[in-house]
Amino acid sequence: MYSERIRLASLHDRIMSAAQAAALIEDGMTVGMSGFGGAGDAKAIPLALVERAEGAPLRINLITGASLGRGLDGLMAEAGLLARRMPFQGDPLLRRAINAGDVMFIDQHLSEVVEQIRDGHIPTPDIAVIEAVAITEQGHIVPTSSVGNSASLALMARQVIVELNLGCNPLLEGLHDIHIPEDRPDRQPIPLVRVDERIGTPAIEIDPAKIAAIVICDTPETAYPMLPPDNETQAIANHLIGFFEREVASGRLAGNLAPLQVGVGSIANAVMHGLIESSFSDLTLYSEVLQDSAFALFDAGRLGFASGCSITLSEDCGRRVFADLGKYRDRLVLRPQEISNHPEVARRLGIIGINTALEFDLYGNVNSTHVGGTRMMNGIGGSGDFTRNARLAIFVTKSVAKDGAISSVVPMVGHVDHTEHDVDILVTEQGLADLRGLAPRERARAIIDNCVHPDYRAALEDYFARACERGGQTPHLLGEALSWHLNLEERGHMLKAG
Amino acid sequence: MYSERIRLASLHDRIMSAAQAAALIEDGMTVGMSGFGGAGDAKAIPLALVERAEGAPLRINLITGASLGRGLDGLMAEAGLLARRMPFQGDPLLRRAINAGDVMFIDQHLSEVVEQIRDGHIPTPDIAVIEAVAITEQGHIVPTSSVGNSASLALMARQVIVELNLGCNPLLEGLHDIHIPEDRPDRQPIPLVRVDERIGTPAIEIDPAKIAAIVICDTPETAYPMLPPDNETQAIANHLIGFFEREVASGRLAGNLAPLQVGVGSIANAVMHGLIESSFSDLTLYSEVLQDSAFALFDAGRLGFASGCSITLSEDCGRRVFADLGKYRDRLVLRPQEISNHPEVARRLGIIGINTALEFDLYGNVNSTHVGGTRMMNGIGGSGDFTRNARLAIFVTKSVAKDGAISSVVPMVGHVDHTEHDVDILVTEQGLADLRGLAPRERARAIIDNCVHPDYRAALEDYFARACERGGQTPHLLGEALSWHLNLEERGHMLKAG
Repeated sequence: MYSERIRLASLHDRIMSAAQAAALIEDGMTVGMSGFGGAGDAKAIPLALVERAEGAPLRINLITGASLGRGLDGLMAEAGLLARRMPFQGDPLLRRAINAGDVMFIDQHLSEVVEQIRDGHIPTPDIAVIEAVAITEQGHIVPTSSVGNSASLALMARQVIVELNLGCNPLLEGLHDIHIPEDRPDRQPIPLVRVDERIGTPAIEIDPAKIAAIVICDTPETAYPMLPPDNETQAIANHLIGFFEREVASGRLAGNLAPLQVGVGSIANAVMHGLIESSFSDLTLYSEVLQDSAFALFDAGRLGFASGCSITLSEDCGRRVFADLGKYRDRLVLRPQEISNHPEVARRLGIIGINTALEFDLYGNVNSTHVGGTRMMNGIGGSGDFTRNARLAIFVTKSVAKDGAISSVVPMVGHVDHTEHDVDILVTEQGLADLRGLAPRERARAIIDNCVHPDYRAALEDYFARACERGGQTPHLLGEALSWHLNLEERGHMLKAG
Repeated sequence: MYSERIRLASLHDRIMSAAQAAALIEDGMTVGMSGFGGAGDAKAIPLALVERAEGAPLRINLITGASLGRGLDGLMAEAGLLARRMPFQGDPLLRRAINAGDVMFIDQHLSEVVEQIRDGHIPTPDIAVIEAVAITEQGHIVPTSSVGNSASLALMARQVIVELNLGCNPLLEGLHDIHIPEDRPDRQPIPLVRVDERIGTPAIEIDPAKIAAIVICDTPETAYPMLPPDNETQAIANHLIGFFEREVASGRLAGNLAPLQVGVGSIANAVMHGLIESSFSDLTLYSEVLQDSAFALFDAGRLGFASGCSITLSEDCGRRVFADLGKYRDRLVLRPQEISNHPEVARRLGIIGINTALEFDLYGNVNSTHVGGTRMMNGIGGSGDFTRNARLAIFVTKSVAKDGAISSVVPMVGHVDHTEHDVDILVTEQGLADLRGLAPRERARAIIDNCVHPDYRAALEDYFARACERGGQTPHLLGEALSWHLNLEERGHMLKAG
């Protein structure tokens, strides 16, 4: 019945129910699961675990690629299943449990998870649960719409549960390029020198004897709701396009720019949509999550090739793309996140990284993760992997949030994810600050003049002037540096006077 | 007369005085100079520029490898010569000018300087001043005791002034390995896969027509005073050695550990001295500045090979090593800082990075640069290049400074150079906190229990407990987070009660 999808016949007797397979997972185990950007996630086993947790104590350490879709992280958190969770999440219920201190969340650079398992910093998974579109004649696993950490998790775990998702388009097979760096001390260079190169295998080459269970499911991929572009995201896109045009005119960038990396989310997606109306062509993406905008750019004839580690689409876009996958197939590749996000490759290719900031400060330090300096939003994700090694590290955000109660440009960020050493360009709807080659006081000038919202400009200007009177390479008034955050906490608005 | 040292005869007529050569440097120029860790720096031209500045307006943008020796940076700053300075410095007079806002200091990751010139982020040097031990038959430049950025600065500049230092040991020739990454988009992997490999050329292959001047000098290399190990540095070394021994016993590290990178300065140097009495052998260094401890480890039979980008020694050690260079020559290589510090190579080799923190916080964020959050000390140097891509990122510091008025462990650092995502191990004389795989609240527990000085433990514990009551992934009290720094500023001690 499943011979097309499970092409190694000896594995057919491993087919079982999700409940039976979930029974392989024991209390205290470290479990690896597929899933990145809510795509290609294990879907049946998490639900079966939630059911099991009702009857007996069951707490696991969960390692994935990145976020899971379908509210699975929240359901597992509510069921008390998650003792430790890494390296990323994006679920409101899990977020609440993390901020309450009920789940230990280890917020990691996405390229480093597997490296940390190899080095023994975090435990080797006992068992891996991997969504597949097929199992090959050799018993190798063909992932679905993400690779994430699936390949290494499956290779490292003692046992593997495969969720064979019949709902996934069989044309996904052939899209993946699995390359795993050698163990040290014999590690060789990652041979990737062009965005469109393939350096690995189309399936995860595990020993089929490790496949302990195959669970058949037919669950559609999660749709990722995407806010439409608005005036402010369009303004951000326009500032950025103007900057790129000037860079090309000055000869600093080629006509097709450089490989682009674009962070997850509505703002970055909207910015990329802006490129449809630009003059650039033959663009390439060397990114993490491929979103709606990637396919819009393909359709507009702007994009030549896209390399990512997951495809995460809105409902409309997903229906269209997966129904017509053949059209895009030879211009797409999905890699393990260790490769899609690898510092070695990002630096070699000279990517342009465009990521979303929660807030940034006077000197260009960026907070990507912590609301009010303390409460986790999602996680750093790949933003550090890319920003640190990008040719151009760009952060975008709207200049204010919550109807103006929050300024995204503050005297000092409450939490630093990206330091001023690593941030080249900041863009809000107000304008673009080009910080390249500037000392901190000059960075502050560029940020005040270009990025801050008019309602906050005078206050920031005043802070900066008084800080400069005190002196220093990076002038600050320590007694006031976090006062905007404190005002927000205590009075609901960053400026006392409202 | 200098035929052994200037082996391309056609260059002999370029010999001139330092004053004549310095006249090639014009007001407003961007000047590249050799020098890294006070080694291999241009010595005559900076002094000639200081003299010239007395007579006429002369302000330059100065790019070096890292710090210059002999107080040159301070002399140039005092003469008002420096408009902009990058990427690192270590001079008290220049520091004062930077913190006063008189010199714009761009504090950069040392591996990225040349990349930023290539990408047009910072200006291409008009002229480069490079100290050499010889000029070859082809007119290529053989650097002295550092490579730093010398190769790329010389290759990129329109004109080159060579300072031929007759005081340098001719045996330095052959020690260097110059490899320059290709321009993008055709860049290839850096082929280095072993610490002791050579992948380049022994000299800087510039067009000899660019050599506009050769200045003969005979100035001894700067000695780098090194504080002797004390009880506290010995305790830090002991904690670290105990940790390494446990890692080897558990199989996570090999018996010869992994290539070590060791930051500049007395504490890191003393920690390395501690390895002399350890059980490890066949160690390797893949580091930046090779200090006294490297040669002590060679002499003790502990070290097999050392790769760096400069040799910076104390007076005693320098006399001994340079007099007997042949003894070490086949176990040493000096590379451009772009290669010695390259993220690609650091990640591939899986280095253990040991750097000194100015302070770190409850959650393991590290400040390497800014006293009181505002005043520049030296610069981030290579610490970010290594920390971010290390297999093990370790920071060491004494738990208190200034007779106990300053705790090196604080609720929140006043400036972040290395985020908690990148810091694995923290060590003070009090003990070692192993932060691998821990969530922020667990990191705080490990740091309070192991690193903080007893005089500050109760206060930090109290802060943490009250912060946890407020909740969050990274609990903080925004109104108090920087209060220790503020107390120090206002009352001279981090704790109000003294």
